[in-house]
Amino acid sequence: MRTATRPLVTADRLGRFFDAGSIALVGASDTSGWARNIVLSCQLTGFAGTLVPVHPKHSSAFGRPTVPTLRDLAEPVDLAFVLAPTHAVEGVLEDAAAAGIRHAVVLASGYREVGGDGARLQDRLVEQAVRLGITVLGPNCLGYLNAHTGSAPFALTIPPPLAAGPVGLVLHSGALATAVLDFARAHAIGVSLLTSMGNESVITTVDVVNHLVEDAATKVICLFLEGIGQPEEFALAARNASRAGKPIVALKVGASLAGQAAALAHTGSVAGDDAVVDAILRQLDVIRVGSLEELLTTAALLGYHPHPKGRRVAVLTASGGACDIIADRAADAGLEIPDFTAETTTAIAAHLPPFASARNPLDVTGYVLAHQRSDPLTALDHALDAAVDDPNIDAVLYAGVAMPAVRPADERLAGLIERRMSWLGRRVATSPVPVIALSSTCVDLGPYARELLAPQRINVLGGIDLATRALGNTLRWLDSCAADRPWPTLTGGGQRTHPAAWSELAARQLLGAAGVPLIPAELARTPEAAVAAAHRLGLPVALKVCGPGIAHKSDRGGVALDLGTDQAVRQAYKRVAGEDGSVLVSPMRTGGLELLAGVSLDPTFGPVLAVGLGGIFVEVLRDTSLRALPVDEPEVRRMLGELRGAPLLSGARGSQPADLDAVAAAVVALTRAAATVEKLQAIEVNPLWVCGSRVEALDALVVTEGGSADAAHRER
Amino acid sequence: MRTATRPLVTADRLGRFFDAGSIALVGASDTSGWARNIVLSCQLTGFAGTLVPVHPKHSSAFGRPTVPTLRDLAEPVDLAFVLAPTHAVEGVLEDAAAAGIRHAVVLASGYREVGGDGARLQDRLVEQAVRLGITVLGPNCLGYLNAHTGSAPFALTIPPPLAAGPVGLVLHSGALATAVLDFARAHAIGVSLLTSMGNESVITTVDVVNHLVEDAATKVICLFLEGIGQPEEFALAARNASRAGKPIVALKVGASLAGQAAALAHTGSVAGDDAVVDAILRQLDVIRVGSLEELLTTAALLGYHPHPKGRRVAVLTASGGACDIIADRAADAGLEIPDFTAETTTAIAAHLPPFASARNPLDVTGYVLAHQRSDPLTALDHALDAAVDDPNIDAVLYAGVAMPAVRPADERLAGLIERRMSWLGRRVATSPVPVIALSSTCVDLGPYARELLAPQRINVLGGIDLATRALGNTLRWLDSCAADRPWPTLTGGGQRTHPAAWSELAARQLLGAAGVPLIPAELARTPEAAVAAAHRLGLPVALKVCGPGIAHKSDRGGVALDLGTDQAVRQAYKRVAGEDGSVLVSPMRTGGLELLAGVSLDPTFGPVLAVGLGGIFVEVLRDTSLRALPVDEPEVRRMLGELRGAPLLSGARGSQPADLDAVAAAVVALTRAAATVEKLQAIEVNPLWVCGSRVEALDALVVTEGGSADAAHRER
Repeated sequence: MRTATRPLVTADRLGRFFDAGSIALVGASDTSGWARNIVLSCQLTGFAGTLVPVHPKHSSAFGRPTVPTLRDLAEPVDLAFVLAPTHAVEGVLEDAAAAGIRHAVVLASGYREVGGDGARLQDRLVEQAVRLGITVLGPNCLGYLNAHTGSAPFALTIPPPLAAGPVGLVLHSGALATAVLDFARAHAIGVSLLTSMGNESVITTVDVVNHLVEDAATKVICLFLEGIGQPEEFALAARNASRAGKPIVALKVGASLAGQAAALAHTGSVAGDDAVVDAILRQLDVIRVGSLEELLTTAALLGYHPHPKGRRVAVLTASGGACDIIADRAADAGLEIPDFTAETTTAIAAHLPPFASARNPLDVTGYVLAHQRSDPLTALDHALDAAVDDPNIDAVLYAGVAMPAVRPADERLAGLIERRMSWLGRRVATSPVPVIALSSTCVDLGPYARELLAPQRINVLGGIDLATRALGNTLRWLDSCAADRPWPTLTGGGQRTHPAAWSELAARQLLGAAGVPLIPAELARTPEAAVAAAHRLGLPVALKVCGPGIAHKSDRGGVALDLGTDQAVRQAYKRVAGEDGSVLVSPMRTGGLELLAGVSLDPTFGPVLAVGLGGIFVEVLRDTSLRALPVDEPEVRRMLGELRGAPLLSGARGSQPADLDAVAAAVVALTRAAATVEKLQAIEVNPLWVCGSRVEALDALVVTEGGSADAAHRER
Repeated sequence: MRTATRPLVTADRLGRFFDAGSIALVGASDTSGWARNIVLSCQLTGFAGTLVPVHPKHSSAFGRPTVPTLRDLAEPVDLAFVLAPTHAVEGVLEDAAAAGIRHAVVLASGYREVGGDGARLQDRLVEQAVRLGITVLGPNCLGYLNAHTGSAPFALTIPPPLAAGPVGLVLHSGALATAVLDFARAHAIGVSLLTSMGNESVITTVDVVNHLVEDAATKVICLFLEGIGQPEEFALAARNASRAGKPIVALKVGASLAGQAAALAHTGSVAGDDAVVDAILRQLDVIRVGSLEELLTTAALLGYHPHPKGRRVAVLTASGGACDIIADRAADAGLEIPDFTAETTTAIAAHLPPFASARNPLDVTGYVLAHQRSDPLTALDHALDAAVDDPNIDAVLYAGVAMPAVRPADERLAGLIERRMSWLGRRVATSPVPVIALSSTCVDLGPYARELLAPQRINVLGGIDLATRALGNTLRWLDSCAADRPWPTLTGGGQRTHPAAWSELAARQLLGAAGVPLIPAELARTPEAAVAAAHRLGLPVALKVCGPGIAHKSDRGGVALDLGTDQAVRQAYKRVAGEDGSVLVSPMRTGGLELLAGVSLDPTFGPVLAVGLGGIFVEVLRDTSLRALPVDEPEVRRMLGELRGAPLLSGARGSQPADLDAVAAAVVALTRAAATVEKLQAIEVNPLWVCGSRVEALDALVVTEGGSADAAHRER
């Protein structure tokens, strides 16, 4: 299907789609709230193009004359917004094609979102679109708005005023647009393009992301995601964005749905779905946020400021309390608040009352603000002037733009404020580091502030909490982009129907061939062969049942450990041997640490690597680090560093420091093995034993769809 | 000092203080920004009392005639707001007393906050206040505002409009008041009393909390705390609040300051200061929040709604995206979103379009809102009408009050909205469960909504993120209040100067006497005595150096474990014995789990109990649970349940489930022991061994100020 629709979503087509200069509203009547909203949206954006209502019965709508059908248009419009009911959509699209119209938004619902017949109806819609050469946004879609060009075929209320700006918005829930735009309005966050994605029959989220990466008006891309469709293409789109230096910020919902990973492999059962999403979005340089407010505030920071070079911030406030709160939240966000240089300190102190102290974080005290002055600049502004040039500082958090809601009646006061703001605009523009203005709490920017700040290109972030989170997000994104690591491919997973485990011997052969270091092991089919093997390998040994289809060996009594004598080996053989009498004999290992490493198939994303410390860390604390494949050794080392139990690997509590390079090499070899297996469901080494520089897989599990003929073969 | 000032801060005095009907502004001139702000504050609140400027040189200020000094007043005012500079304050207070004035706010800084001479100056101020019988708020203080009575001697800008309401605010940073009031304004959160605490020379935070607990206009108390002074009295005030059913919500800053607990005892070093604050605030039923927005939103929820009976919420929205976000955040906040009953479902479905589904969380879809109707109620309102009576539901989150910023020009539409809001007010008032209105994002309540909602006593919480946090906070507070447990006493700590460890034998005697179960041990002073003891106790044994002043025995090579033979015991004796030849011989324990339990003296709060699992849990994961004393056994069981490693205690990974009652009894016995020791710094059992129902202290450490003569004595 995607191949068929591809010619409909080229860069050129989407460029035209999202900047329609003439729009037909098919089915618009004066009583349609949707149509009214589109008319109002276009009024609000100052749409200069034509808006033609199309209705078979009414002769006018919204004061405009109608035509009965699209075929009756004098010339084709750029876009048809189809408000007609579901059953009438096909006819309207035929009319559109006949009229030479190549772009349509379809509002009607009753398609794939209702399942069954709806899904078939949507397939027919796509076939029709391909046949007619019409690019479709929707169905079940509220349209888009382009704040820069004013093209706004958008069927929801837009809260005024709408600012044009650097933030592109792609929403899986169109009905959320009003809420999103309302917060953007409140904080004067300018929008480039907002799209309601609907059912993504032809234009998909990935298409719009790719479009926004190329769109010069867009500096940052915000996504509200209910799911991640087309993961492979999504990963490529994210790479394009990252390479273009355009951050993607995403609010991905669904975390509260219980993880549904199958439980056959251990790594599968500990990796909840949302943790996988989280890990993969990080790999894709996508900033994941927890609220709409954080989404937009992070976008505002990224869209309106140059990128900070580091995490050392100057904090400039007129309240000791605000300093304290910022210091706490800055610590949470991984920011540093270093001392000013002596030069900066002197420059700042010159403008402070004697009892205030010129340190970072800076409280110039309310005293300074309460006293009348002729200098338009406050002590805070003088501090800003000095701090931006401080070599210890990478960014300034500036809580100094509070101003009255409306222009003061006192002309002198208004003049001071206005001179101050134009100074601020100039100083921010010439500052070598980003100056991030923020309010103390998340409140709407007042009309006076909006009027003064917009010309200065200053955006005020909404409150300490959101501003510090946004800055933390920005710095994490910069670190993420700077890391040189393999980009995930997200080949997809699919359904599991008949997973079956290989024999351990076959699993060992696979892993060994890929370069995973293995504990020595011999297959024995009689008690005496087991004893002989034990002597060759060195007592004490472990015995394990070995045969295909056996996953949880110890739960079935299929493992005997620490067998120190011939008699113990013989007795254990009787307990653990499988139907065909096969057991695997291995020496015991003591000391060191046990890890686990495994690749399991995520139904959406495909192979996902989990690495963790064994024992309580994975079973009690669920302490694992996840990545989509491929990974390289430095990336595996980063995974190990993310574990809560990481200090154990570096020798906490007197343990021998683990050779992390050797561990990483073994894990990468495991992922190589995973890549060679067809119909892989899971591959797992648990435990992966490490003792200093010695690393060995003590056990191995491979699960494939339908088991493996290979496996039986390799047994021989 | 506190005893001397107590008569100045009685309930009666504070009641009068915070409702001054006549106010003198001492030092007010037209150029004083502070004085102007007070005049404006009183205008804004509609203060009906008198405001008299007092100035030695100017004959008028702010259009009012001045008097030269307070002595020149015709009759005493209720309150003098002293704007005079620091050096003039004493004189002004003498004047005030001479004029019969009994209440004063002191603005000047340069007192305790600057240390040294400032601290002495403040002591003199307090002596003077006591001598003159004047109740002082400040110095270094911006005053207060009482929104109900209009009394507003408050020297900062109040952003209009100011709503009177249920939220009391006590701020350690007065300069933060504008930010706090700005957020309150934005969300129409009504204030009862706001106080800037300044240096708390006479009136303290605890006094104001006690006042607000008694204040009928206040339903919830918000604190911005830079520290917790008077911990013992704070604990009592919090108990009063809890018993009165008045929640305290606190933003306590300082988390980013590194914990400074001394490292001599293990529990001290793992219990960072902020973690102690966190634990103690929870014990005091104080809701701790992370931002000013969360502070006020939580207060709004508590101040404007009846308390929910449980955590089962109905979620009513017009957007699938909002449903998804609420579901995720609700899960984070510990809320449940149960199914509606069949009856509710039927009632809701009757008002939905056929493609919408009447489930919880409910999305009535934008369709419903886009269509004109004659019924003022939307599908969301009908859903509300049904959901409030659903027996599965304890509270309703209602995202249905979005309305235009100003009254629509279309009278019919305005009429619909207004009838809808008055219906809503009636339905909310008669609802058996709280109906919590929220917006989708944190934006200011518009003027039209403010005008319509205030008469209906409906407060709209600012956005999904804050609303769900606030509801989670509320439910945790209700659970906390419902728990029957000992109230912490917070007796205070003080400085450590000469901490010294007791000998282990003395520590064992102390613990044993208090009922802590101990591993058997014998003191031996020769190798042969050690061997003999080992045989009596049963090999293998452990040998430990035993003498006063020895804290970290194993770090000094003072411990030998697992000695299985006489020779091993003899050799170990030579290695570990101390100067006087004393060693302690104990049997080894295997299996089971190791915990640690200890009481250390927090410099602010006094004895704090830490309980954790031993080994990696405490050393790598810092996994401890903390409480101020006293605790009882159910509380210790709750502490154990809070540990990340708690599953291990209940038998995870095949471990034997621990007898938690026996563990709790041993820990409570440890706290009893702590209570008997004078000048205690720390007492610790590490490990506390538990194996099924067997619990034994395997090691014991007691540290007191200056060591203990007792300890030496008990050695015999």
